[in-house]
Amino acid sequence: MNIDKINLSEKFGKLPDSDYAVGIIAKMNNYEIKVVKRTGEAKSEFVLHKHEDTDETFIVLEGTMVMNYSDRAVEVNKGEMIVIPKGVEHQPSTITGYKVLLIELENTLNTGNIINEKTIRKIECV
Amino acid sequence: MNIDKINLSEKFGKLPDSDYAVGIIAKMNNYEIKVVKRTGEAKSEFVLHKHEDTDETFIVLEGTMVMNYSDRAVEVNKGEMIVIPKGVEHQPSTITGYKVLLIELENTLNTGNIINEKTIRKIECV
Repeated sequence: MNIDKINLSEKFGKLPDSDYAVGIIAKMNNYEIKVVKRTGEAKSEFVLHKHEDTDETFIVLEGTMVMNYSDRAVEVNKGEMIVIPKGVEHQPSTITGYKVLLIELENTLNTGNIINEKTIRKIECV
Repeated sequence: MNIDKINLSEKFGKLPDSDYAVGIIAKMNNYEIKVVKRTGEAKSEFVLHKHEDTDETFIVLEGTMVMNYSDRAVEVNKGEMIVIPKGVEHQPSTITGYKVLLIELENTLNTGNIINEKTIRKIECV
């Protein structure tokens, strides 16, 4: 049983050096807590998708995440968070990059109901 | 349906001006996300307690939280987090104060299996 603390900067440092990277850092009941990093160099947009089984919480630790819905967009900055309800189509994007803490049910597919080149079948622990 | 962003500083600012304060800021499925503030002026210790039904995630946004277990203590600083597994006795304390984001199952009693003067029967939304 691990009840040690987790340092977030250290965990982000373990992510691969790519323009989009995700890693699992902790479990809480049947939920996973993940670090997600995107850089401003991201060449391709993340896909508009939805999760039918779970809400998703994004907490922005650095940078700015633009959360696009089908009809509008919300800019989520450092020190802000957003909960995407299940079934709601959303597309996180960025211009300057971001570091985010993501909380959702375990085994949630990162691209939800869509399978494309951004889909990660198994997200690793970091 | 609220899919607007939440500003954490703004939510902390809505907490009462006391040495221990908690407010609910969001729901994710059947979980609650809360802001918890303690000041260094806290005159009384929080009680050693446990939650039989849920793990609890503490994310430290400011200050230092000392998490005491029955046999040791872990200092959790800004930029660090800790998940307390269900059934594990713990007692958060502080010298300098802290601001924490707390995530746990809805209707979790703040003092777990103990009822004392710190118990809050109904935590309000802020």
